[in-house]
Amino acid sequence: MIKKMVEIGILFDFYGYLLTKKQRDAIELYYLKDLSLAEIGERIEVSRQGVYDVLKRGEKNLYSYEDKLGLVKKFKQNEEDIKKIINLSENILLTIEKENTNLDYIEEKVKEIKSLGLDLVER
Amino acid sequence: MIKKMVEIGILFDFYGYLLTKKQRDAIELYYLKDLSLAEIGERIEVSRQGVYDVLKRGEKNLYSYEDKLGLVKKFKQNEEDIKKIINLSENILLTIEKENTNLDYIEEKVKEIKSLGLDLVER
Repeated sequence: MIKKMVEIGILFDFYGYLLTKKQRDAIELYYLKDLSLAEIGERIEVSRQGVYDVLKRGEKNLYSYEDKLGLVKKFKQNEEDIKKIINLSENILLTIEKENTNLDYIEEKVKEIKSLGLDLVER
Repeated sequence: MIKKMVEIGILFDFYGYLLTKKQRDAIELYYLKDLSLAEIGERIEVSRQGVYDVLKRGEKNLYSYEDKLGLVKKFKQNEEDIKKIINLSENILLTIEKENTNLDYIEEKVKEIKSLGLDLVER
């Protein structure tokens, strides 16, 4: 359930504004604000079963946008590479801090950073 | 015109698969393959005026997706920061190459890289 919440949360961040207002409200209240179907029904003025249907349709649409555009997947790949850049820069800073001045090591790590950056711009 | 071609090209990369097949074909043939309206009309079997309408509707939809989601804008901001990371790493490599070992300078630049990386992950 938590995995699905996170997944829907990310998809919602990207594609939420392509949903209808009702679908958006239902998903926000259910997945992000953790309200029950009955509570959401009161807020958006549909039956409990109606809320369920709106939620399912909204979720299906979010997955369908991702199937078509794949922007979340692309974003996650980018994020991984950026995290590698952060790690590499932390490693370099640690080396400098230890006054263990291995320039070959620093050069190698900076080349990796540059290459990750170039991949990210090309992608 | 070139500015518009580039703009539509980027929007098309992001949101093209949300368009109808006909809109997608028309935009691809007109903006990416540089065919005339008459030529496109023959290919997708609509009148010259029909092609114009399909193109306009497709363009309008692309701009509307960007208005709603802003993913191209976000992507461009990210790209700028990644280019800064590439520049910073090139500067460091140049310093090392010149055997002008200014560790304070390297440390400062690597800190900038790390900070840009953290901004990118947070965004």
